[in-house]
Amino acid sequence: MYRIAIVGYGNLGKGVEAAIRQNPDMELVAVVSRRNPEGLKTATDGVLKVSLDNVLELKGKVDALVICAGSATDLPEMTPALAKDFNVIDSFDTHAKIPEHYAKVDAAARSGGNIAMISVGWDPGMFSVTRAMSSAILPDGCDYTFWGKGVSQGHSDAIRRIEGVIDARQYTVPVESAVNKVTSGKCPELSTRDKHTRECFVVAEEGADLERIEREIVEMPNYFADYNTTVHFITKEELDRDHAGLPHGGVAIRNGRTGLKLEHTHTISYSLRLDSNPEFTSSAIIAYTRAMLRKKERGEVGCITVFDVAPADMSALSREHLISHML
Amino acid sequence: MYRIAIVGYGNLGKGVEAAIRQNPDMELVAVVSRRNPEGLKTATDGVLKVSLDNVLELKGKVDALVICAGSATDLPEMTPALAKDFNVIDSFDTHAKIPEHYAKVDAAARSGGNIAMISVGWDPGMFSVTRAMSSAILPDGCDYTFWGKGVSQGHSDAIRRIEGVIDARQYTVPVESAVNKVTSGKCPELSTRDKHTRECFVVAEEGADLERIEREIVEMPNYFADYNTTVHFITKEELDRDHAGLPHGGVAIRNGRTGLKLEHTHTISYSLRLDSNPEFTSSAIIAYTRAMLRKKERGEVGCITVFDVAPADMSALSREHLISHML
Repeated sequence: MYRIAIVGYGNLGKGVEAAIRQNPDMELVAVVSRRNPEGLKTATDGVLKVSLDNVLELKGKVDALVICAGSATDLPEMTPALAKDFNVIDSFDTHAKIPEHYAKVDAAARSGGNIAMISVGWDPGMFSVTRAMSSAILPDGCDYTFWGKGVSQGHSDAIRRIEGVIDARQYTVPVESAVNKVTSGKCPELSTRDKHTRECFVVAEEGADLERIEREIVEMPNYFADYNTTVHFITKEELDRDHAGLPHGGVAIRNGRTGLKLEHTHTISYSLRLDSNPEFTSSAIIAYTRAMLRKKERGEVGCITVFDVAPADMSALSREHLISHML
Repeated sequence: MYRIAIVGYGNLGKGVEAAIRQNPDMELVAVVSRRNPEGLKTATDGVLKVSLDNVLELKGKVDALVICAGSATDLPEMTPALAKDFNVIDSFDTHAKIPEHYAKVDAAARSGGNIAMISVGWDPGMFSVTRAMSSAILPDGCDYTFWGKGVSQGHSDAIRRIEGVIDARQYTVPVESAVNKVTSGKCPELSTRDKHTRECFVVAEEGADLERIEREIVEMPNYFADYNTTVHFITKEELDRDHAGLPHGGVAIRNGRTGLKLEHTHTISYSLRLDSNPEFTSSAIIAYTRAMLRKKERGEVGCITVFDVAPADMSALSREHLISHML
């Protein structure tokens, strides 16, 4: 039985709690929170509730901490700090800063004789796995990633910060004609605008200047200016009724050529359709937590990534079952 | 530089030769054949041509044998026999007999202190990887595999054995409505007939009884009787012009549920569109040959499968490159 503590009890942490229940070799023993841990209402009974300040109380009581916090400011501090004392896993997803995060977490984990795993989920995560495997199989080729249709929480937050906006939901939508071009085996040059559109559902204050809000959205640098963006003003009731979920998904594609004259093309597509982005991410994290702890049992320390994990280590099924039923 | 020998120089062996050229750390040093090896015309210069009877001459000269032979009768004998003296890899694809093959190859490889890998390709192979990973992430779920549209060489051969048939090409075609049902997240019961149709292009002898040939095809047990089958009679010229390639592909899908009440569904789809079935299989074999030989360098012996291989070991790219560019 692997004893797990969740650090941070938001959407992702709650997803980890649910995922642990689906895995018979996993047990939730503690939830760690920065704010008022005693006040937390967990879905699981008999769970220790611990303040982050007192996290060292858990030493010897848990096999791994699953750190469910934001990539912008929390994980860059928390994961290295906690890796000194615990086996840890996170879903750090700021792609450009992964090498820096990796180096810090690796040093911290080695200093404590622990194992750590970063950037687990679907992108980074399962999409990274398919990118690495597909480029190994088809060395001459091109890669594409399309995200959506799904809710981008960062973009929704950006709209909410505009004056006169009460609430908002932003969907990232892949451009179907671009996806079709790529899955037919071609390697087109695609701009940011060619690949995705952005669709916004916005609840505005009564009497707000809707034209100004729409202009501020579509012209917002980094977030919207490089995309074709559509804005729909709806009521709070419509938002709550039609846009309450956090669906997401996407597809990672590699086209490659083989043959003595590179005369044949092949397309590998790995696609996800997710009702709940945080719950799928949590489910991936729990499978990789198992793999990480098995590696620790074999003596491995330091930071690993999804590239270091063999499929058998992720699975609760026996080697014999996998060979008989899944190969 | 990994020194490779190909055993069996048919479509798959030629694909391996082409794949080796796309991988800078791989070198083809020998081709082994049962029949008249001196007469072989290889695309690569300076390659040793060795009779299977004299294969032990290659000991110390090659790092791995890639065995490119049939699963029905050749591989069950050849892979265990050769694993005693060499590191070996094959694409054994008779799913029901994999455990037996695994046991024999494992014992042989261990007796010689070698490493061996079986059942590499796309199914078994990459589809097996996605089945194992997806079921680890989504333990509550259902699996589906659809093959095609693509040429089945076994079914084409079966048609050729009918009296009055000169040549034939059989395509396996997934039923689109069944695929769509599954990728939308449902777990329907699907019969063999629900999942695939079979389309046959047949060249008959002049004056042959076409009605009898068609009846013999569609009623053939195991091969066609359980499917909706279409037969088209065409000329030899049409067959050579329109059906010369060996395209294939397919999709492996898992639908799974998450959440405290299992209220959310997710769909993971891994799909392939291949211009050349043997060349894609060969390309996967070469990536896994690299992984297998790296494991050997770390001291591993015995038989492994795709479930035992971490993505980083398949890739010629450095760990740093993978983390910076693919994670």
